[in-house]
Amino acid sequence: MTVQRADARRNYARILAVAEQEVAAHGAEASLERIARVAGVGSATVRRHFPGRRALLEAVFQERIAALCTHAEELAAADDPRAALLEWLEALAAYAASARGMAEALTGDTGGAADQGGQVSACSARLGDGATPLLRNAARAGAVAADVTVTDLITLVTGIALATEHHRDPTAEAHRLLALTVAGISPRP
Amino acid sequence: MTVQRADARRNYARILAVAEQEVAAHGAEASLERIARVAGVGSATVRRHFPGRRALLEAVFQERIAALCTHAEELAAADDPRAALLEWLEALAAYAASARGMAEALTGDTGGAADQGGQVSACSARLGDGATPLLRNAARAGAVAADVTVTDLITLVTGIALATEHHRDPTAEAHRLLALTVAGISPRP
Repeated sequence: MTVQRADARRNYARILAVAEQEVAAHGAEASLERIARVAGVGSATVRRHFPGRRALLEAVFQERIAALCTHAEELAAADDPRAALLEWLEALAAYAASARGMAEALTGDTGGAADQGGQVSACSARLGDGATPLLRNAARAGAVAADVTVTDLITLVTGIALATEHHRDPTAEAHRLLALTVAGISPRP
Repeated sequence: MTVQRADARRNYARILAVAEQEVAAHGAEASLERIARVAGVGSATVRRHFPGRRALLEAVFQERIAALCTHAEELAAADDPRAALLEWLEALAAYAASARGMAEALTGDTGGAADQGGQVSACSARLGDGATPLLRNAARAGAVAADVTVTDLITLVTGIALATEHHRDPTAEAHRLLALTVAGISPRP
Protein backbone atom coordinates (compact mmCIF):
# COMPACT_ATOMS: atom_id res chain seq x y z
CA MET A 1 0.00 0.00 0.00
CA THR A 2 2.68 2.49 1.04
CA VAL A 3 4.74 1.73 -2.05
CA GLN A 4 1.66 2.21 -4.23
CA ARG A 5 0.89 5.55 -2.58
CA ALA A 6 4.49 6.72 -2.99
CA ASP A 7 4.30 5.68 -6.65
CA ALA A 8 1.07 7.62 -7.11
CA ARG A 9 2.60 10.72 -5.52
CA ARG A 10 5.66 10.44 -7.76
CA ASN A 11 3.47 10.03 -10.83
CA TYR A 12 1.37 13.03 -9.87
CA ALA A 13 4.45 15.21 -9.35
CA ARG A 14 6.01 14.00 -12.62
CA ILE A 15 2.83 14.58 -14.64
CA LEU A 16 2.41 18.06 -13.14
CA ALA A 17 6.05 18.98 -13.86
CA VAL A 18 5.74 17.83 -17.48
CA ALA A 19 2.36 19.59 -17.79
CA GLU A 20 3.93 22.87 -16.62
CA GLN A 21 6.62 22.59 -19.31
CA GLU A 22 4.13 21.66 -22.02
CA VAL A 23 1.70 24.45 -21.06
CA ALA A 24 4.58 26.95 -20.99
CA ALA A 25 5.62 25.80 -24.48
CA HIS A 26 2.22 25.25 -26.13
CA GLY A 27 -0.28 27.14 -23.94
CA ALA A 28 -3.64 25.73 -22.93
CA GLU A 29 -3.73 23.56 -26.06
CA ALA A 30 -0.94 21.32 -24.71
CA SER A 31 -1.60 17.68 -25.65
CA LEU A 32 -2.64 15.37 -22.79
CA GLU A 33 -1.33 12.37 -24.77
CA ARG A 34 2.06 14.00 -25.17
CA ILE A 35 2.16 14.88 -21.46
CA ALA A 36 1.52 11.21 -20.61
CA ARG A 37 4.25 10.08 -23.07
CA VAL A 38 6.90 12.53 -21.80
CA ALA A 39 6.04 11.73 -18.17
CA GLY A 40 6.44 8.02 -18.98
CA VAL A 41 2.97 7.04 -17.79
CA GLY A 42 -0.18 5.80 -19.52
CA SER A 43 -3.06 8.07 -20.55
CA ALA A 44 -5.24 6.29 -17.95
CA THR A 45 -2.84 7.37 -15.19
CA VAL A 46 -3.04 11.01 -16.37
CA ARG A 47 -6.85 10.78 -16.39
CA ARG A 48 -6.89 9.24 -12.91
CA HIS A 49 -5.01 12.25 -11.49
CA PHE A 50 -6.58 14.87 -13.77
CA PRO A 51 -10.06 13.96 -15.06
CA GLY A 52 -9.77 16.49 -17.88
CA ARG A 53 -7.88 19.37 -19.41
CA ARG A 54 -9.52 21.86 -17.04
CA ALA A 55 -8.36 19.98 -13.93
CA LEU A 56 -4.83 19.78 -15.32
CA LEU A 57 -4.68 23.49 -16.25
CA GLU A 58 -6.04 24.46 -12.83
CA ALA A 59 -3.35 22.36 -11.14
CA VAL A 60 -0.64 24.02 -13.27
CA PHE A 61 -2.14 27.45 -12.51
CA GLN A 62 -2.20 26.80 -8.73
CA GLU A 63 1.31 25.33 -8.83
CA ARG A 64 2.70 28.45 -10.49
CA ILE A 65 0.93 30.78 -8.08
CA ALA A 66 2.36 28.75 -5.20
CA ALA A 67 5.83 28.95 -6.80
CA LEU A 68 5.53 32.74 -7.15
CA CYS A 69 4.51 33.00 -3.47
CA THR A 70 7.47 30.83 -2.40
CA HIS A 71 9.76 32.95 -4.59
CA ALA A 72 8.41 36.09 -2.87
CA GLU A 73 9.03 34.59 0.59
CA GLU A 74 12.63 33.73 -0.31
CA LEU A 75 13.24 37.18 -1.80
CA ALA A 76 11.80 38.91 1.29
CA ALA A 77 14.99 37.91 3.12
CA ALA A 78 17.31 39.37 0.44
CA ASP A 79 19.80 42.15 1.28
CA ASP A 80 18.68 44.51 -1.51
CA PRO A 81 14.90 45.12 -1.18
CA ARG A 82 14.69 46.97 -4.51
CA ALA A 83 16.51 44.25 -6.48
CA ALA A 84 14.35 41.64 -4.71
CA LEU A 85 11.10 43.36 -5.70
CA LEU A 86 12.25 43.82 -9.30
CA GLU A 87 13.29 40.15 -9.56
CA TRP A 88 9.84 39.14 -8.38
CA LEU A 89 8.13 41.50 -10.85
CA GLU A 90 10.12 39.89 -13.67
CA ALA A 91 8.98 36.44 -12.54
CA LEU A 92 5.40 37.72 -12.31
CA ALA A 93 5.61 39.15 -15.84
CA ALA A 94 6.84 35.81 -17.21
CA TYR A 95 3.98 34.08 -15.40
CA ALA A 96 1.35 36.58 -16.60
CA ALA A 97 2.33 36.00 -20.22
CA SER A 98 1.55 32.28 -19.95
CA ALA A 99 -1.29 32.54 -17.42
CA ARG A 100 -3.41 34.56 -19.81
CA GLY A 101 -3.85 31.66 -22.22
CA MET A 102 -4.68 29.43 -19.27
CA ALA A 103 -7.22 31.82 -17.80
CA GLU A 104 -8.96 32.10 -21.17
CA ALA A 105 -9.03 28.33 -21.59
CA LEU A 106 -10.52 27.91 -18.13
CA THR A 107 -13.10 30.65 -18.74
CA GLY A 108 -14.30 28.92 -21.89
CA ASP A 109 -14.71 25.62 -20.04
CA THR A 110 -17.79 24.17 -18.33
CA GLY A 111 -17.16 25.86 -14.99
CA GLY A 112 -18.47 29.15 -16.31
CA ALA A 113 -17.24 32.71 -16.08
CA ALA A 114 -18.35 33.38 -12.48
CA ASP A 115 -16.40 30.41 -11.12
CA GLN A 116 -13.34 31.40 -13.13
CA GLY A 117 -13.59 35.00 -11.97
CA GLY A 118 -13.70 33.77 -8.39
CA GLN A 119 -10.69 31.56 -8.92
CA VAL A 120 -8.68 34.35 -10.56
CA SER A 121 -9.58 36.69 -7.66
CA ALA A 122 -8.51 34.07 -5.12
CA CYS A 123 -5.20 33.55 -6.94
CA SER A 124 -4.66 37.28 -7.16
CA ALA A 125 -5.30 37.59 -3.40
CA ARG A 126 -2.81 34.79 -2.64
CA LEU A 127 -0.21 36.48 -4.84
CA GLY A 128 -0.88 39.78 -3.11
CA ASP A 129 -0.39 38.24 0.33
CA GLY A 130 2.81 36.56 -0.83
CA ALA A 131 4.33 39.75 -2.23
CA THR A 132 3.28 42.15 0.54
CA PRO A 133 6.45 41.70 2.66
CA LEU A 134 8.59 42.28 -0.46
CA LEU A 135 6.80 45.53 -1.26
CA ARG A 136 6.89 46.65 2.40
CA ASN A 137 10.68 46.12 2.51
CA ALA A 138 11.14 48.11 -0.70
CA ALA A 139 8.92 50.94 0.59
CA ARG A 140 10.86 51.03 3.89
CA ALA A 141 14.09 51.31 1.89
CA GLY A 142 12.57 54.26 0.00
CA ALA A 143 12.68 52.37 -3.30
CA VAL A 144 8.89 52.51 -3.85
CA ALA A 145 6.35 55.23 -3.03
CA ALA A 146 4.44 54.43 0.18
CA ASP A 147 1.01 54.48 -1.52
CA VAL A 148 1.85 51.83 -4.14
CA THR A 149 -0.06 48.59 -3.49
CA VAL A 150 0.63 45.01 -4.54
CA THR A 151 -2.60 45.18 -6.55
CA ASP A 152 -1.18 48.14 -8.49
CA LEU A 153 1.89 46.07 -9.37
CA ILE A 154 -0.11 42.98 -10.36
CA THR A 155 -2.47 45.12 -12.48
CA LEU A 156 0.40 46.88 -14.27
CA VAL A 157 2.18 43.59 -15.02
CA THR A 158 -1.08 41.99 -16.20
CA GLY A 159 -1.70 44.96 -18.49
CA ILE A 160 1.76 44.64 -20.02
CA ALA A 161 1.15 40.92 -20.64
CA LEU A 162 -2.23 41.64 -22.27
CA ALA A 163 -0.92 44.46 -24.46
CA THR A 164 2.12 42.49 -25.69
CA GLU A 165 0.29 39.22 -26.32
CA HIS A 166 0.29 39.61 -30.12
CA HIS A 167 3.83 41.00 -30.33
CA ARG A 168 6.27 38.84 -32.31
CA ASP A 169 8.40 38.36 -29.16
CA PRO A 170 5.98 38.89 -26.22
CA THR A 171 8.46 37.93 -23.49
CA ALA A 172 11.17 40.34 -24.66
CA GLU A 173 8.65 43.13 -25.21
CA ALA A 174 7.04 42.58 -21.77
CA HIS A 175 10.53 42.68 -20.22
CA ARG A 176 11.31 45.95 -21.99
CA LEU A 177 8.02 47.61 -20.98
CA LEU A 178 8.33 46.41 -17.38
CA ALA A 179 11.80 48.01 -17.22
CA LEU A 180 10.27 51.24 -18.55
CA THR A 181 7.46 51.08 -15.97
CA VAL A 182 9.97 50.52 -13.16
CA ALA A 183 12.17 53.42 -14.31
CA GLY A 184 9.18 55.61 -15.16
CA ILE A 185 8.25 57.20 -18.49
CA SER A 186 9.20 60.58 -17.07
CA PRO A 187 10.21 60.20 -13.40
CA ARG A 188 11.33 63.79 -12.81
CA PRO A 189 8.87 66.28 -11.24
CA MET B 1 -28.84 71.69 -54.12
CA THR B 2 -26.29 73.60 -52.07
CA VAL B 3 -28.77 73.96 -49.21
CA GLN B 4 -29.45 70.21 -49.32
CA ARG B 5 -25.73 69.38 -49.26
CA ALA B 6 -25.13 71.76 -46.37
CA ASP B 7 -28.04 70.12 -44.56
CA ALA B 8 -26.57 66.67 -45.19
CA ARG B 9 -23.18 67.78 -43.87
CA ARG B 10 -24.78 69.27 -40.78
CA ASN B 11 -26.79 66.09 -40.21
CA TYR B 12 -23.68 63.94 -40.60
CA ALA B 13 -21.72 66.07 -38.14
CA ARG B 14 -24.63 66.11 -35.65
CA ILE B 15 -25.18 62.34 -35.85
CA LEU B 16 -21.45 61.70 -35.41
CA ALA B 17 -21.22 64.05 -32.42
CA VAL B 18 -24.21 62.36 -30.74
CA ALA B 19 -22.81 58.91 -31.62
CA GLU B 20 -19.51 59.79 -29.92
CA GLN B 21 -21.34 60.77 -26.73
CA GLU B 22 -23.55 57.68 -26.81
CA VAL B 23 -20.63 55.34 -27.50
CA ALA B 24 -18.63 56.98 -24.70
CA ALA B 25 -21.60 56.45 -22.34
CA HIS B 26 -22.84 53.02 -23.47
CA GLY B 27 -19.96 51.48 -25.44
CA ALA B 28 -20.41 49.67 -28.72
CA GLU B 29 -23.98 48.69 -27.74
CA ALA B 30 -25.17 52.31 -28.09
CA SER B 31 -28.66 52.39 -29.60
CA LEU B 32 -28.91 53.65 -33.20
CA GLU B 33 -32.55 54.63 -32.57
CA ARG B 34 -31.57 56.73 -29.59
CA ILE B 35 -28.74 58.38 -31.57
CA ALA B 36 -31.28 59.36 -34.27
CA ARG B 37 -33.69 60.72 -31.63
CA VAL B 38 -31.05 62.77 -29.76
CA ALA B 39 -29.63 64.09 -33.05
CA GLY B 40 -33.16 65.13 -34.07
CA VAL B 41 -33.18 63.15 -37.33
CA GLY B 42 -35.05 60.12 -38.57
CA SER B 43 -33.66 56.57 -38.46
CA ALA B 44 -33.59 56.62 -42.27
CA THR B 45 -31.23 59.60 -42.20
CA VAL B 46 -28.88 57.77 -39.81
CA ARG B 47 -28.94 54.71 -42.09
CA ARG B 48 -28.23 56.86 -45.17
CA HIS B 49 -25.02 58.17 -43.58
CA PHE B 50 -24.10 54.98 -41.70
CA PRO B 51 -25.47 51.78 -43.29
CA GLY B 52 -24.97 49.86 -40.03
CA ARG B 53 -23.53 49.81 -36.54
CA ARG B 54 -20.08 48.88 -37.84
CA ALA B 55 -19.92 51.90 -40.15
CA LEU B 56 -20.99 54.19 -37.31
CA LEU B 57 -18.48 52.75 -34.83
CA GLU B 58 -15.70 53.01 -37.42
CA ALA B 59 -16.57 56.66 -38.02
CA VAL B 60 -16.48 57.35 -34.24
CA PHE B 61 -13.18 55.46 -33.95
CA GLN B 62 -11.58 57.45 -36.83
CA GLU B 63 -12.95 60.72 -35.45
CA ARG B 64 -11.38 60.12 -32.05
CA ILE B 65 -8.02 59.12 -33.55
CA ALA B 66 -8.10 62.33 -35.64
CA ALA B 67 -8.96 64.34 -32.49
CA LEU B 68 -6.02 62.78 -30.61
CA CYS B 69 -3.68 63.63 -33.51
CA THR B 70 -4.94 67.24 -33.58
CA HIS B 71 -4.52 67.41 -29.80
CA ALA B 72 -0.92 66.18 -30.19
CA GLU B 73 -0.21 68.80 -32.86
CA GLU B 74 -1.52 71.60 -30.63
CA LEU B 75 0.45 70.32 -27.63
CA ALA B 76 3.68 70.10 -29.67
CA ALA B 77 3.82 73.91 -29.55
CA ALA B 78 3.43 74.07 -25.74
CA ASP B 79 6.09 75.64 -23.54
CA ASP B 80 6.50 72.66 -21.19
CA PRO B 81 7.29 69.54 -23.27
CA ARG B 82 6.92 67.20 -20.28
CA ALA B 83 3.52 68.56 -19.24
CA ALA B 84 2.42 68.47 -22.90
CA LEU B 85 3.37 64.80 -23.29
CA LEU B 86 1.66 63.85 -20.01
CA GLU B 87 -1.52 65.70 -21.00
CA TRP B 88 -1.59 63.75 -24.25
CA LEU B 89 -1.01 60.43 -22.45
CA GLU B 90 -4.01 61.22 -20.21
CA ALA B 91 -6.16 61.86 -23.27
CA LEU B 92 -4.88 58.65 -24.85
CA ALA B 93 -5.74 56.68 -21.70
CA ALA B 94 -9.29 58.06 -21.69
CA TYR B 95 -9.59 57.11 -25.36
CA ALA B 96 -8.14 53.61 -24.85
CA ALA B 97 -10.72 52.85 -22.16
CA SER B 98 -13.60 53.44 -24.57
CA ALA B 99 -11.84 52.25 -27.76
CA ARG B 100 -11.46 48.75 -26.41
CA GLY B 101 -15.17 48.04 -26.47
CA MET B 102 -15.30 49.46 -29.96
CA ALA B 103 -12.38 47.39 -31.20
CA GLU B 104 -14.02 44.24 -29.84
CA ALA B 105 -17.35 45.11 -31.44
CA LEU B 106 -15.66 45.67 -34.79
CA THR B 107 -13.66 42.45 -34.50
CA GLY B 108 -16.80 40.43 -33.94
CA ASP B 109 -18.47 41.96 -36.99
CA THR B 110 -18.60 40.71 -40.58
CA GLY B 111 -15.35 42.38 -41.65
CA GLY B 112 -13.36 39.68 -39.91
CA ALA B 113 -10.33 39.76 -37.65
CA ALA B 114 -7.73 40.37 -40.38
CA ASP B 115 -9.50 43.51 -41.60
CA GLN B 116 -9.90 44.77 -38.02
CA GLY B 117 -6.25 44.02 -37.21
CA GLY B 118 -5.26 46.04 -40.26
CA GLN B 119 -7.49 48.93 -39.25
CA VAL B 120 -6.19 48.95 -35.68
CA SER B 121 -2.59 48.92 -36.99
CA ALA B 122 -3.34 51.82 -39.33
CA CYS B 123 -4.91 53.81 -36.47
CA SER B 124 -1.96 53.02 -34.22
CA ALA B 125 0.44 54.22 -36.95
CA ARG B 126 -1.51 57.48 -37.37
CA LEU B 127 -1.47 58.04 -33.62
CA GLY B 128 2.26 57.33 -33.55
CA ASP B 129 2.92 59.86 -36.31
CA GLY B 130 0.78 62.42 -34.52
CA ALA B 131 2.57 62.02 -31.18
CA THR B 132 6.16 61.77 -32.47
CA PRO B 133 6.91 65.54 -32.28
CA LEU B 134 5.54 65.61 -28.71
CA LEU B 135 7.80 62.74 -27.64
CA ARG B 136 10.80 64.24 -29.47
CA ASN B 137 10.33 67.56 -27.65
CA ALA B 138 10.12 65.77 -24.29
CA ALA B 139 13.24 63.71 -25.06
CA ARG B 140 15.15 66.87 -26.08
CA ALA B 141 14.16 68.45 -22.77
CA GLY B 142 15.54 65.38 -20.97
CA ALA B 143 12.10 64.47 -19.63
CA VAL B 144 12.00 61.05 -21.35
CA ALA B 145 14.77 58.52 -22.05
CA ALA B 146 16.00 58.76 -25.65
CA ASP B 147 15.15 55.11 -26.47
CA VAL B 148 11.45 55.36 -25.52
CA THR B 149 9.22 55.09 -28.60
CA VAL B 150 5.66 56.26 -29.22
CA THR B 151 4.75 52.59 -29.66
CA ASP B 152 6.03 51.91 -26.13
CA LEU B 153 3.75 54.63 -24.78
CA ILE B 154 0.70 53.46 -26.76
CA THR B 155 1.30 49.84 -25.67
CA LEU B 156 1.64 50.79 -22.00
CA VAL B 157 -1.53 52.89 -22.06
CA THR B 158 -3.43 50.15 -23.91
CA GLY B 159 -2.27 47.62 -21.31
CA ILE B 160 -3.51 49.82 -18.48
CA ALA B 161 -6.89 50.15 -20.21
CA LEU B 162 -7.15 46.38 -20.71
CA ALA B 163 -6.12 45.54 -17.15
CA THR B 164 -8.53 48.04 -15.54
CA GLU B 165 -11.53 47.23 -17.75
CA HIS B 166 -13.37 45.28 -15.03
CA HIS B 167 -12.47 47.66 -12.20
CA ARG B 168 -15.43 49.37 -10.54
CA ASP B 169 -14.07 52.79 -11.65
CA PRO B 170 -11.90 52.05 -14.72
CA THR B 171 -11.19 55.70 -15.59
CA ALA B 172 -9.95 56.63 -12.10
CA GLU B 173 -7.91 53.43 -11.83
CA ALA B 174 -6.35 53.94 -15.28
CA HIS B 175 -5.49 57.52 -14.29
CA ARG B 176 -3.82 56.31 -11.08
CA LEU B 177 -1.80 53.58 -12.83
CA LEU B 178 -0.74 55.93 -15.62
CA ALA B 179 0.59 58.37 -13.00
CA LEU B 180 2.52 55.48 -11.41
CA THR B 181 3.92 54.46 -14.82
CA VAL B 182 5.00 58.05 -15.51
CA ALA B 183 6.66 58.40 -12.10
CA GLY B 184 8.07 54.86 -12.18
CA ILE B 185 7.50 52.00 -9.73
CA SER B 186 11.06 52.42 -8.52
CA PRO B 187 12.82 55.12 -10.54
CA ARG B 188 16.10 55.23 -8.60
CA PRO B 189 19.09 53.22 -9.93
